[in-house]
Amino acid sequence: MSLLHGDPELARALACVRSVARRDFLFAGAAVAAGAVIPTGALAETAAQAAKPAGEVTDEDRQYMAMALDRMREAGVVNKTGGPFGAVLVLDGKVLAVAGNSVMRDSDPSAHAEVNVLREACRKVGSPHVDGAVLYSSCEPCPMCYSVAYWARVGKIFYGASYADYGDLFDDSNIAKDLNLPYGQRHIAVQQIMRPEAQKVWEEFRQLPDGARY
Amino acid sequence: MSLLHGDPELARALACVRSVARRDFLFAGAAVAAGAVIPTGALAETAAQAAKPAGEVTDEDRQYMAMALDRMREAGVVNKTGGPFGAVLVLDGKVLAVAGNSVMRDSDPSAHAEVNVLREACRKVGSPHVDGAVLYSSCEPCPMCYSVAYWARVGKIFYGASYADYGDLFDDSNIAKDLNLPYGQRHIAVQQIMRPEAQKVWEEFRQLPDGARY
Repeated sequence: MSLLHGDPELARALACVRSVARRDFLFAGAAVAAGAVIPTGALAETAAQAAKPAGEVTDEDRQYMAMALDRMREAGVVNKTGGPFGAVLVLDGKVLAVAGNSVMRDSDPSAHAEVNVLREACRKVGSPHVDGAVLYSSCEPCPMCYSVAYWARVGKIFYGASYADYGDLFDDSNIAKDLNLPYGQRHIAVQQIMRPEAQKVWEEFRQLPDGARY
Repeated sequence: MSLLHGDPELARALACVRSVARRDFLFAGAAVAAGAVIPTGALAETAAQAAKPAGEVTDEDRQYMAMALDRMREAGVVNKTGGPFGAVLVLDGKVLAVAGNSVMRDSDPSAHAEVNVLREACRKVGSPHVDGAVLYSSCEPCPMCYSVAYWARVGKIFYGASYADYGDLFDDSNIAKDLNLPYGQRHIAVQQIMRPEAQKVWEEFRQLPDGARY
């Protein structure tokens, strides 16, 4: 991981390798796709991807996390823009964005610190992707934040506090558990209607030579 | 569900009941919390919440879904602002927001149709919550979108196409499966550092009489 900070060329090369791995992963995932209800742990049993050991932690990693903790305190304790959550987004050894949670200030349920830094960083690079970037979050990312990081092709996430440290105050761990339930038992009732009409638009999209894919 | 469209008073009363249920749910969730690694299906075995049967579908529901499908086509086929995904957000029988996916146009990995309508609706009501609102999505919401709906206290989600209809093109179902894996096997490497420092900020936050909680 320390190499990513010091060598932009290597970082780009790694991002390229990772992009290929991602497509392989996509293919492997498609092979076990099983309809509308998510099979709990289905991929866990079939994943070819080996467990990744925890990596080396550098002084720079600790400095970036300290910045995230500063923003955590600022957001939750000092300015009260939202809950006490902060994040930093680093790409090729450069800080692209630093932000705190601003859910209350912005009346935006998605304005978690991690989403805020990813939005800002992507705006700066002019792409919805920051391949191989490192996300430092003061707290364990909720499923929304992890998913945005996935869509943005973040390469690594460091986090500080655990769900268990604030599970009585915020719904992060409840959402993670809720996502494991079949739709009929979810916190939000989820129901499918008009699938054939939606499939027609997909057919049309698939015939485009230049559809917006990402 | 049709009652929600016709009777704002009843909708508010239901939202109030739901808010209490949410706190009970939060408490039940805390009781089975189990640290940093999410136990697959833990809540599934302990949930007191009974399975909800699929509800009645009204002509209004179909009209709102048709609007979402129009935006799906506009976003993915006509204007190509992003993938073919559209959404509509309805509160108390009124359309608060209609949007398509704009990930490519906005260079924003979080700009899915569902997130776009929730952000716009919340801005309009001046709150990060739209208690009991109904979300119509052209396609099965990805974990990011479901989570934003959860944070925003959406009451019901209708969706059209299934993950399986576009699993070869977009990562939605892969992210759902990835969230079930322990951190060591995730698509993004996730590592905890400096937890004690983060816990100190939580201690400070807990002593505030007026901390921003949501």
